[in-house]
Amino acid sequence: MLYSLEAGGKRIRPLLLLATLEAFGEDVNKGMLTAAAIEMIHTYSLIHDDLPSMDNDDLRRGKPTNHKVFGDAFAILAGDAMLTYSFQLIAETPSEYTNANTLLRLIKELSKAAGAEGMVGGQVADINGENNELSLKDLEYIHIHKTGKLLQYSVVAGAILAEANESTIKTLEEFAYHLGLAFQIRDDILDLEGTEAMIGKPVGSDTSKHKSTYPSILTLDGAKEVLHSHIQQAKEKLRETGLNTELLEEITDLIETRNH
Amino acid sequence: MLYSLEAGGKRIRPLLLLATLEAFGEDVNKGMLTAAAIEMIHTYSLIHDDLPSMDNDDLRRGKPTNHKVFGDAFAILAGDAMLTYSFQLIAETPSEYTNANTLLRLIKELSKAAGAEGMVGGQVADINGENNELSLKDLEYIHIHKTGKLLQYSVVAGAILAEANESTIKTLEEFAYHLGLAFQIRDDILDLEGTEAMIGKPVGSDTSKHKSTYPSILTLDGAKEVLHSHIQQAKEKLRETGLNTELLEEITDLIETRNH
Repeated sequence: MLYSLEAGGKRIRPLLLLATLEAFGEDVNKGMLTAAAIEMIHTYSLIHDDLPSMDNDDLRRGKPTNHKVFGDAFAILAGDAMLTYSFQLIAETPSEYTNANTLLRLIKELSKAAGAEGMVGGQVADINGENNELSLKDLEYIHIHKTGKLLQYSVVAGAILAEANESTIKTLEEFAYHLGLAFQIRDDILDLEGTEAMIGKPVGSDTSKHKSTYPSILTLDGAKEVLHSHIQQAKEKLRETGLNTELLEEITDLIETRNH
Repeated sequence: MLYSLEAGGKRIRPLLLLATLEAFGEDVNKGMLTAAAIEMIHTYSLIHDDLPSMDNDDLRRGKPTNHKVFGDAFAILAGDAMLTYSFQLIAETPSEYTNANTLLRLIKELSKAAGAEGMVGGQVADINGENNELSLKDLEYIHIHKTGKLLQYSVVAGAILAEANESTIKTLEEFAYHLGLAFQIRDDILDLEGTEAMIGKPVGSDTSKHKSTYPSILTLDGAKEVLHSHIQQAKEKLRETGLNTELLEEITDLIETRNH
């Protein structure tokens, strides 16, 4: 568990949650355990995705993947334990920061975002789509679920902890929808344009696995255009909230230009 | 997910939870979603345990194991989604039955019982112990964690939902400790004395995998003696509670004599 948690990574999901709390002028400590829970779920999903029966990847974040070091059985169990622990972390948020009903809502929404209706459902669709030519709609379905739902949850969880009204939560959810798609399109572009040192795994792995990507469907220039459009729509949603969203805007800009 | 959930099984964990509520004279509907959550966690753990990289079992509950039908990737993901969904189920218990603080406690305790400190930790110890001669103490550690913690949780969850006082919860936890060990010893005995039709999987699989078992350490007669002693201690703990525990006693008797 520690091996994969300490392997680094961008920590974009916890950052989004804390930056959302910041936008509401809230104490970021309110969200620290939920932020850790989200990163734990993300990391477990990488461990399981990297397994030989799934993506069969040897490198992650520049280090050998979990199963390469500990074997498949312990990699599966490390993931299981991390997924289980993430719910405990949220439930253990000290009562000085929030109330039990808010924590229950966070747990319910996390389960939806990470489970069969969300991230796991996206991974199932991804596997089903392998070696098939996907339409843009199929590809979006995969990314909205596999990556998007947990990114959206990161922002929504911050808003829930800030006791935001439902209409503001909805607007932030739409912001995160565009951010999530932008994030994934940038990922696809990096797989073509990046270097192994930049992205911590071999470049061109999507192509060699015959995976459909935004550039393979839209061309590289087309993918960059769609990326830019999602970034603009994300920022528009941020403006709509009327909150102090500087930090969230900076993260949004970073996602368009990131090299890893 | 449905394939494995509908494969049957004894449903001993949900039964224990509902029988505990019954002992307190409570409406069993209070515990229906938590009972479902526990069975879901148990079923996910079987799917993952049966994988080729773990126990590599082809039969479970008389049917081909999940990965034999759907492949390893979907078996892993079905387990992940069920584990995730179990927390949602508890969190969705209608507010007419209980309050948010009780549900949060149920979620925290489930995470401990099912995660690295509990069931998953027991599975790790089990794998580490393979092909080694285990002491009785090692074997008990494995069973207390791998099977015992979730069985204990089933009883404790009923008591928590019944708003029992901490001392009664503790006594019921001790009852379930003995019941859990008895359950596992009976399992080991059935692996020697049962038939494939009775237990839904090949007999003698522990022996062929060189697994240490209660009979292999204590002899068959010795194992039966220890089984009986745990059953007696479990019943003594039930009497200590002063509750109406008829149903729990019946389940306890069944565990000593069960054939599957």
